Amino acid sequence: MPPQRQNEDSLIRKIAHRWLVPHSVPGQSVVLGIGDDAALLRPKSGQEIILTCDWFLEGTHFLRDQHPPDSVGWKCLARALSDIAAMGGTPRCFLLSLALPQKLTGRWLDLFLGGLRRASRKFQCPLAGGDTTRQSKVLINVSIVGEVPTGHAVRRSGARAGDILYVTGRLGEAELGLQIVRHGARPAQKRNPSTSKHLYPEPRLALGQWLSKRGLATAMMDISDGLSTDLPRLCAASAIGAQIEEAKIPQVHTSDLAIKYGRNPIQLALHGGDDYELLFTVPPQQAKLLPKRFQGVRLTAIGRITPERELLLLEKDGSASHLPSGGWDPFRKKS
Amino acid sequence: MPPQRQNEDSLIRKIAHRWLVPHSVPGQSVVLGIGDDAALLRPKSGQEIILTCDWFLEGTHFLRDQHPPDSVGWKCLARALSDIAAMGGTPRCFLLSLALPQKLTGRWLDLFLGGLRRASRKFQCPLAGGDTTRQSKVLINVSIVGEVPTGHAVRRSGARAGDILYVTGRLGEAELGLQIVRHGARPAQKRNPSTSKHLYPEPRLALGQWLSKRGLATAMMDISDGLSTDLPRLCAASAIGAQIEEAKIPQVHTSDLAIKYGRNPIQLALHGGDDYELLFTVPPQQAKLLPKRFQGVRLTAIGRITPERELLLLEKDGSASHLPSGGWDPFRKKS
Repeated sequence: MPPQRQNEDSLIRKIAHRWLVPHSVPGQSVVLGIGDDAALLRPKSGQEIILTCDWFLEGTHFLRDQHPPDSVGWKCLARALSDIAAMGGTPRCFLLSLALPQKLTGRWLDLFLGGLRRASRKFQCPLAGGDTTRQSKVLINVSIVGEVPTGHAVRRSGARAGDILYVTGRLGEAELGLQIVRHGARPAQKRNPSTSKHLYPEPRLALGQWLSKRGLATAMMDISDGLSTDLPRLCAASAIGAQIEEAKIPQVHTSDLAIKYGRNPIQLALHGGDDYELLFTVPPQQAKLLPKRFQGVRLTAIGRITPERELLLLEKDGSASHLPSGGWDPFRKKS
Repeated sequence: MPPQRQNEDSLIRKIAHRWLVPHSVPGQSVVLGIGDDAALLRPKSGQEIILTCDWFLEGTHFLRDQHPPDSVGWKCLARALSDIAAMGGTPRCFLLSLALPQKLTGRWLDLFLGGLRRASRKFQCPLAGGDTTRQSKVLINVSIVGEVPTGHAVRRSGARAGDILYVTGRLGEAELGLQIVRHGARPAQKRNPSTSKHLYPEPRLALGQWLSKRGLATAMMDISDGLSTDLPRLCAASAIGAQIEEAKIPQVHTSDLAIKYGRNPIQLALHGGDDYELLFTVPPQQAKLLPKRFQGVRLTAIGRITPERELLLLEKDGSASHLPSGGWDPFRKKS
């Protein structure tokens, strides 16, 4: 049977059918979901609202021929949720703006919605509404609403000289995964450990909430564009500098593949984007309260905050150099 | 002096500089604006949060060569605000997702931000954050957060048989404006009364809030895709039908221009999109409480709600016909 030709209303029904909002999440805050002019959310008392939005565009953020639609669905939500994690917040709901060609409204859309729904369930963030239209390329924009107890959001601007700088997980894994997908002869496979961080990132929501609740982190952000691009942003917001030790940076665990694509692990770890790990600062007297791992994710001290407004990289041979900013910037790189 | 080459951070600074959030709106709710991982909003107690998002894409929703960038900036916000008006809500802040070519980050962006900022000030909806990236075409997505006293949002689903159906303003003006802009030899002028509704629509926020506060409207939505497309949506949500009188529909005031472009006023009024007027239902015993005009905008009864789930158009000669759905649907029309 040929796929049914969609109009805007039938497409919205197809998307809404996957969620059946507002019945899907117990105790959730969405009081009116898809199908009206706007969605309605009942905020909890004593909480501030966190708002963020994120582009996810064919050709810029994913390749339609090489990225599984299931991964596109998962990742467009997961990466936006990472901003909620970076504030120490809890997601409440999201809006999906989706533009796509008519020919993708069948199987491609089904698989995309499958991945999106898995992420939505896993991170307890139901779909509340959105907007759909037709385009020759797939354009996605995800807006997320989260909550955090009033005054507990962790900003980028609170780092102080002497604070210890931490990262979660290992850096550079997603960038290596991207290289593998780009150079692959066939579309990427869903179940491949070398590409899973690139295709299915996991926002560090639980850790962000824990750090916020305990008041341990003075500043926090997520690493989405690469450590060498994001750390300067944290430093600028806090009006301080930082000194990081190359030997301490938790690097992607792979040599053959990295070498094959002409990259070495430390370059991947410093400049690779899309890791969605957390970068945060903790006063030295509080550092002993941090576990080595949190729910299986390693926390690693990579350096410290300095009063001088410069970024120094202490290399393995003991020399120090200024950290060049080499991460992802859509206005620097060719798209 | 050649325009300075932008990177993502300098572009965000340029946008933020226009707003100076959170200092621009007295009594506003944004406690953390542009520059962190996400924005923070402090909700007022006793209020529900309204969420909506809207695409505004070059080639689909506007033409870069013919629409003034100032209008693109104004309209991308105004049309999204219309969804807040349709719920009876008050806007609190918006997020701007903007993708554009490097070559437009100078003058085009300045003019775009000028129009956006005027709408932002006029409708008291400050910019709280967003996302920027580079693309070959201009892609805009606006998400808005509004508030409405708990339980007072006016949904599409509350219309009852016997209710009187109202529209604001005149219908078809924006569609005629679009025809004039499309057929114009030169880019549209900012100050032309025939195109002002198309280029600079005004969301009916004050009326929506008034109707919600008084509890007069049983159902409400905005007319964005045309009466013949939007009225069926209100009827479907309320599980009722409607009967409208052609002679009562407030039509665009122009004959020469409409005829020139092969359209007659009633066709423009029934099927033209982009008017952003409100469509709402009022129980007959409450109708006398409605003024004829609200802040200069005419309110017109065009028909009534019927228990039969069909849409009838009573024509001027006394005959009745089913109303064909002929408004804007991106998956039906060629973009």
